[in-house]
Amino acid sequence: MKKIAILGSTGSIGTQTLDLVKHSPEKFQVEAISAGYNSDLVIEQAKQFQPKLVSVATKELAETVASQLPSNIKVLYGDAGLLEVAAATDADLLVSALVGSQGLRPTLAAIEAGKDIGLANKETLVSAGHIVTEAVSRKGVALLPIDSEHSAIFQCLNGEKRSQVSQITITASGGSFRDRTREQLIGVTVEDALKHPNWSMGAKITIDSATMVNKGLEVMEAHWLFGLGYEDIKVLLHPESVIHSYVEFVDHSVIAQLGNPDMRVPIQYALTYPNRYTTPTTKLDLAAIGKLHFREMDYTRFPCLRMAFESGKQGGTTPTVYNAANEIAVARFLKGDISFLQIEDIIEASLHKHESFANPTIEVIHEQDQWARTFAASIRF
Amino acid sequence: MKKIAILGSTGSIGTQTLDLVKHSPEKFQVEAISAGYNSDLVIEQAKQFQPKLVSVATKELAETVASQLPSNIKVLYGDAGLLEVAAATDADLLVSALVGSQGLRPTLAAIEAGKDIGLANKETLVSAGHIVTEAVSRKGVALLPIDSEHSAIFQCLNGEKRSQVSQITITASGGSFRDRTREQLIGVTVEDALKHPNWSMGAKITIDSATMVNKGLEVMEAHWLFGLGYEDIKVLLHPESVIHSYVEFVDHSVIAQLGNPDMRVPIQYALTYPNRYTTPTTKLDLAAIGKLHFREMDYTRFPCLRMAFESGKQGGTTPTVYNAANEIAVARFLKGDISFLQIEDIIEASLHKHESFANPTIEVIHEQDQWARTFAASIRF
Repeated sequence: MKKIAILGSTGSIGTQTLDLVKHSPEKFQVEAISAGYNSDLVIEQAKQFQPKLVSVATKELAETVASQLPSNIKVLYGDAGLLEVAAATDADLLVSALVGSQGLRPTLAAIEAGKDIGLANKETLVSAGHIVTEAVSRKGVALLPIDSEHSAIFQCLNGEKRSQVSQITITASGGSFRDRTREQLIGVTVEDALKHPNWSMGAKITIDSATMVNKGLEVMEAHWLFGLGYEDIKVLLHPESVIHSYVEFVDHSVIAQLGNPDMRVPIQYALTYPNRYTTPTTKLDLAAIGKLHFREMDYTRFPCLRMAFESGKQGGTTPTVYNAANEIAVARFLKGDISFLQIEDIIEASLHKHESFANPTIEVIHEQDQWARTFAASIRF
Repeated sequence: MKKIAILGSTGSIGTQTLDLVKHSPEKFQVEAISAGYNSDLVIEQAKQFQPKLVSVATKELAETVASQLPSNIKVLYGDAGLLEVAAATDADLLVSALVGSQGLRPTLAAIEAGKDIGLANKETLVSAGHIVTEAVSRKGVALLPIDSEHSAIFQCLNGEKRSQVSQITITASGGSFRDRTREQLIGVTVEDALKHPNWSMGAKITIDSATMVNKGLEVMEAHWLFGLGYEDIKVLLHPESVIHSYVEFVDHSVIAQLGNPDMRVPIQYALTYPNRYTTPTTKLDLAAIGKLHFREMDYTRFPCLRMAFESGKQGGTTPTVYNAANEIAVARFLKGDISFLQIEDIIEASLHKHESFANPTIEVIHEQDQWARTFAASIRF
């Protein structure tokens, strides 16, 4: 029986994690869950999975939630609540599935508490890869990727020597606007942008797929997870998202991980690694799919991916600014404040204005994250 | 420095093995080579790689070869020569690359002598899988597949638990007549049949690809190599031969091995396992390939594959008869004695006539092999 805690239990990764717990109740016990503002769902989850601890965004929500749950379930809120869910329970493993840079501190706290990490929050490694990988190594915990691409690479490396890896290739579906030219992106609506062709995900990550910022964050995450230079990380357009990513070795043998697009496979692999158990997912049927397509990534069509490689190579606080500027830009797009193409303008202007700090502490990262958010929010067109 | 011996040094696998030795002379030393009738090439190979022992088909050829080589290279011939090349040298590993059932006895001798086996000769496992796997396990040697499909499966299983494998899928290019209907196979020529779309191989295996007998033998080989029931071995048509084969696990995660069709990758992997080193091969470029196609195997279009599954399931001496009848049928086709479609008629008639012996000894296998050859040669149309 593995004891787990979940940061972000009402989001896409969180609900799918709980779906897997429901499928194999003999394998998992939920110790703690945190949600933001979706109190109805978190109450339902707490009733079903009986965690010892629940945390929500605000004091008011915590009072509402507490009033509906039995008194043996402790209810907390805010940053302190996140830290307690992450680090202060008997959980063996933390599923870190908050959206954005708020995931960093609680994830680090869990590592320091000796917990294995199932990492769905990309920003933790993007902003603080040097701090997180040092802590993981010092504490001897496992850092298990949940993103389908990183889980694929992680699976392909099973039983292989890292020194014999030549390069990795992260596949990209191309997102909801894959087949549009840049001209055809002018005036696209929020609704259009939220129609991802393959994956059913949260709003922020769906927009990030359309801009290719998501792939950019994945490239930076892969850099830290697998200890590879940016020149050894490739991105390939693969509309079907069936080959989730692959590794090429020095002998030119390629090992790839494939499957239907269903996050429950990589989530469960992180929960049960190095073992595999049945999942409530469908089998891959390549004959029924018939064809898989591949094409070169176009860095002119997707400048956010080019900027991600540049930010990653520069390092320091630059990836933090890339990510924070994007978070603000996406929020502004989602509320109708800016156009789709202005997301990349905001990222570019923020990177241009930013002066990078090398080897930053958590405090400096936080500072520059705040700077980038303020700056990105202030840009007028 | 790994010491290797090669059975079948002038064939397709043998020459490519020596090409790899030439590419990494610091890694490999050739102890012994055997060839059949191609004395010019075996003389050239002996001069270049300086083995201690060379064997050819006949006494006369041995005399010719000996006269052209320095006296410190011992030259033998016939079955005794094959056994000595396989088992009587200091080689760590035997590359078993004879064509057909003649590979069985020397391969077994090498196993009994404690040598690791790089196995390209399918018939060894097809005819005597129960004997070979028992000997491999008793002697604690490694049985390393050289066929691209089995090497792919073997690579995909790295670091994984066999008990968590759900099924394997062997891909099939479809061979030279892939896109023809059965009606369009009437009257095809030997020359047409020898035009394989992806792989450059010997004549016998190229015909076996067109009839799908090769895939049938691979299915039986996979059964023994990976300890899987026939119901867990699937075959998928994949014209490009880029995905060489794949493994599906119980969680519905699929691990596949890919590469350009070049036998030197699986050959070298067998030579250097568990390590990987550079090969003189080209990198896979999926964007340049653009599309991969897949379709269901059609067992009516390819009855030889259906018969292979049936023969494998029946076991005993039935796979031996399937293979021996096919060897004779292909030889008859290649010399213009029968038509392409009569290959399957000969296999079917031989299987129909045969009475299977369960758990056969090497002697019984040899007897039934001979019976099938005589019977298959006697069939008139």
